[in-house]
Amino acid sequence: MQAAFWTTVGLLCLTAGFGSTQKPQPCSSPPLYTGSMTVGTQDEHLWAVGRYSYDVVNQRMHLGETGTLNNKTFTYDALMLYQEGILYEINHHNKTCVKKPLKADFYPMEVPKGAEFVNQVVIGTLSGPGEGLLVNSWWGDMPDKQSKYFLSFTEFGCFPVSAFFKSKSLGGMVSVSYYDNVLGVDPGVFVPPPFCKDAKLEANKDGKETNYFSFFN
Amino acid sequence: MQAAFWTTVGLLCLTAGFGSTQKPQPCSSPPLYTGSMTVGTQDEHLWAVGRYSYDVVNQRMHLGETGTLNNKTFTYDALMLYQEGILYEINHHNKTCVKKPLKADFYPMEVPKGAEFVNQVVIGTLSGPGEGLLVNSWWGDMPDKQSKYFLSFTEFGCFPVSAFFKSKSLGGMVSVSYYDNVLGVDPGVFVPPPFCKDAKLEANKDGKETNYFSFFN
Repeated sequence: MQAAFWTTVGLLCLTAGFGSTQKPQPCSSPPLYTGSMTVGTQDEHLWAVGRYSYDVVNQRMHLGETGTLNNKTFTYDALMLYQEGILYEINHHNKTCVKKPLKADFYPMEVPKGAEFVNQVVIGTLSGPGEGLLVNSWWGDMPDKQSKYFLSFTEFGCFPVSAFFKSKSLGGMVSVSYYDNVLGVDPGVFVPPPFCKDAKLEANKDGKETNYFSFFN
Repeated sequence: MQAAFWTTVGLLCLTAGFGSTQKPQPCSSPPLYTGSMTVGTQDEHLWAVGRYSYDVVNQRMHLGETGTLNNKTFTYDALMLYQEGILYEINHHNKTCVKKPLKADFYPMEVPKGAEFVNQVVIGTLSGPGEGLLVNSWWGDMPDKQSKYFLSFTEFGCFPVSAFFKSKSLGGMVSVSYYDNVLGVDPGVFVPPPFCKDAKLEANKDGKETNYFSFFN
């Protein structure tokens, strides 16, 4: 994001009363959970909602999305098995399956190493039970050092809340909101559907993902 | 926001499981509270953080902001006394005060009449205590019918969480995040500082605010 935004993040650091006395520690999200996400780009070329299943124990993720990209609607269903190094792109409607090498390291959902604490806020209020949520925010340099990321996690449970960062392929800032997280996963979602059985491993031109952000790059 | 975003909001409506069985009712925020906000525009010309005190009983609001507008930093401190029809723009540093007529109706922080329920989500999770927050979202037509607003409130307590809408004067989509709300206000913040005593009522060219949104218009 550009200068104005980061200036404001700097202002947030100055105005955050919490941080100076009781600084939250970096955390990792739970090992197994299911949740929903909304992804949007600043230029509005991409808007999507999706559901994900996350398994850090066996290093796998299943992501189903639907949205609009350059004014065309799309659905995307991807099963990422990092230990096997395989990505399945699944089309349930046509019962077709594309099997690609997944060269990326599995990147756990956590506050990245080197991230700096920005602030702690309450969404809603702590004045009444069930009326507020403590959220910690962090920022740091993107792996290419060309920009910064801004990530928020819940103080209790360390569930992701939001992410902002720049994506090369999407041509600008990406905003991700996470919600409706539920502890635990249905392990069945990590089993490729029967029609994926005969899919042959295809060459993957852009399979050099190395971290959480490069999934969007 | 443009077509892609609203298409996605439509998708959200379809994918929201909650809404169909137990539809939340429109609500009004508490009558007296203090909170913080972050305001940003899509084109990044404006980013600001601020603190507000809100009093629906006596129809008054105090807003203090600092941020960047067109790459210049600014501070803005405004005391809005709707019953008296007066707006004070206060500069504490210079001890100066501008007193303007406030022709607007006081617009309470609530789900506007005619708003449609979009969905209910949990930020974080309900899997553990203190780890999640139930949030309801609503959309509707802006008063000029040229665009739509999108507002989120906490299910319990009805505190504002976020607002998206188009602003004429700011030239695009405006995003507002609300946080750190505390029930109650210090009534002293609604008393103009001593150096405002001699301020004369100035003509206000753009004092025709009529609702929550026109504050940004």
